[in-house]
Amino acid sequence: MSRESLDVVGIGNAIVDVLAHADDAFLAAEGLKKGGMALIDAERAERLYARMGPAVEVSGGSAGNTAAGLASLGARVAYIGKVRDDFLGTVFRHDMRAQGVRFLTPPLTAGPATARSLVLVTPDGQRTMSTYLGASVELRPEDIDAEAIAEARITYLEGYLFDPPLAQKALRKAALLAQRAGRKVALSLSDPYCVERHRALFRELLGASVDILFANELEICALYETRDFAAAAEAAEAEVGIAVLTRSAAGSLVLGQGETHSVAAVTLGPLVDTTGAGDLYASGFLYGLARDLPLPLCGRIGSLCAAEIIGHLGARPEVALAELVRSVGLI
Amino acid sequence: MSRESLDVVGIGNAIVDVLAHADDAFLAAEGLKKGGMALIDAERAERLYARMGPAVEVSGGSAGNTAAGLASLGARVAYIGKVRDDFLGTVFRHDMRAQGVRFLTPPLTAGPATARSLVLVTPDGQRTMSTYLGASVELRPEDIDAEAIAEARITYLEGYLFDPPLAQKALRKAALLAQRAGRKVALSLSDPYCVERHRALFRELLGASVDILFANELEICALYETRDFAAAAEAAEAEVGIAVLTRSAAGSLVLGQGETHSVAAVTLGPLVDTTGAGDLYASGFLYGLARDLPLPLCGRIGSLCAAEIIGHLGARPEVALAELVRSVGLI
Repeated sequence: MSRESLDVVGIGNAIVDVLAHADDAFLAAEGLKKGGMALIDAERAERLYARMGPAVEVSGGSAGNTAAGLASLGARVAYIGKVRDDFLGTVFRHDMRAQGVRFLTPPLTAGPATARSLVLVTPDGQRTMSTYLGASVELRPEDIDAEAIAEARITYLEGYLFDPPLAQKALRKAALLAQRAGRKVALSLSDPYCVERHRALFRELLGASVDILFANELEICALYETRDFAAAAEAAEAEVGIAVLTRSAAGSLVLGQGETHSVAAVTLGPLVDTTGAGDLYASGFLYGLARDLPLPLCGRIGSLCAAEIIGHLGARPEVALAELVRSVGLI
Repeated sequence: MSRESLDVVGIGNAIVDVLAHADDAFLAAEGLKKGGMALIDAERAERLYARMGPAVEVSGGSAGNTAAGLASLGARVAYIGKVRDDFLGTVFRHDMRAQGVRFLTPPLTAGPATARSLVLVTPDGQRTMSTYLGASVELRPEDIDAEAIAEARITYLEGYLFDPPLAQKALRKAALLAQRAGRKVALSLSDPYCVERHRALFRELLGASVDILFANELEICALYETRDFAAAAEAAEAEVGIAVLTRSAAGSLVLGQGETHSVAAVTLGPLVDTTGAGDLYASGFLYGLARDLPLPLCGRIGSLCAAEIIGHLGARPEVALAELVRSVGLI
């Protein structure tokens, strides 16, 4: 096997999304913070599911979405994440492998069910998630495939992994292995509330091991405890080699190699569901990075992939992203 | 309870769709007839699933889709169909109830798994289905809720029910009960190959009990063993009170009350997936009929509902159809 047989290995909570439309009044009645991700237990998941509208089931998980997007772009990708050997676990594994992602982690044969996220999509396209982590919290340091990490140009970590304690250890192990192998480490902050829960640990990992940081406006401001986006961006730039800051319809800011690039958002059609917008932006950006493309072009590919994903329900691409990127002449 | 507390009771195979994009070469390699519905066993379903692309899971079933569409339009609907008490069965029941459909049939607690249809969507938007009927074949005459049938203005039967022998008996019982209660019976022919398999039985039921017939061009021609659509339409008109013949992009023909109405198709956006187009047309048409609207208007509501469903993956509406119908000024 060549020393760089993978472009990216993604590590995250392996989750299937259960997506339904809802209005703001429903979110309020259920006490849900719009745009956020709340962790819920199995019982609460059952009660919320019983009250929400008709749904569709689509594989998800932040790093899982990014890995699927990368594979759809034609990159060589592996994924580490824990499912149970139940129906949703079979669905998650199928969807990864069918997309061309090497799925490395054996499923649990006992214990909690495969993770699911109840995703409520409001008429403005915004998504609000209530996640039952189930089997995904059972990801352990021994699930980290050292060989895959060593073979991958970039190890991509999902910030949500800070929530389950053993998964957090697994994430730290992966970062260390990647560093030792002379590879790059990328981290997505995932969610502002997740940042609030683990700010000190995020800051520590950022300073010690992270080369590429992905965050949206709320997340980067939460990390540096400021309401001033420019100040947060400056702080991020000082701490990591490349900081990629997404701002929804306002596009993104890419800071790295001593330069700051402003990248416009892309529109392909009506906004349906923002679930996975950041994850798919990361797919496009990492794809460009793995091909050594200039940073602004990496950002433009990211914007295009995000535009595809927000045009339909769910966070997995419905077209071959490689063709989409070619069809608009980006590469 | 009032004597007409329901607009429609739908009876069908309770199925969850597993939808994935595929190209024509994949259909050919798998020996699948494009546009058709083939019955497969559990083993074949597993093998085909392993080879098909990343998928999304959306509740389906022809009459199930029609019932969901009717509820989304604001009609009072009940549904009879058999699932197992497994994950997909829970999904199917949730999606019906969350849509406002009274789901009347208790799930199996043992035996085959909930039915699933592997739906391959080609770049032209056409869908090709391979269906494992599982628990749905266990629908029996005793599952027919006589009270619901007596309460409903229209009992809607799915032609696919002719395939499982006991379900066929259940369908005949439902038709008889509806007739005895002085209610209307509607039948959808479902699929040309299904018509080929059961032509004589369809013809018999049509002559004896059916007031409203839904069929597309291929199905009605298969029924009357002709390639001449006009001749098939004439034969249908002679046999049932109202014949509704859908012709994809060419719109539909409504024959009844001594008149023939040509109804244009509606376009709302790009064609993504034709799965459920006929089912949702039936939702709109039956909704109009239950409100005693003129036949051409029933057809126009049907066309609008079909237009919504073909704009996204899956056969369940992603918007409130009642609002859609109001927004374009149809009612």
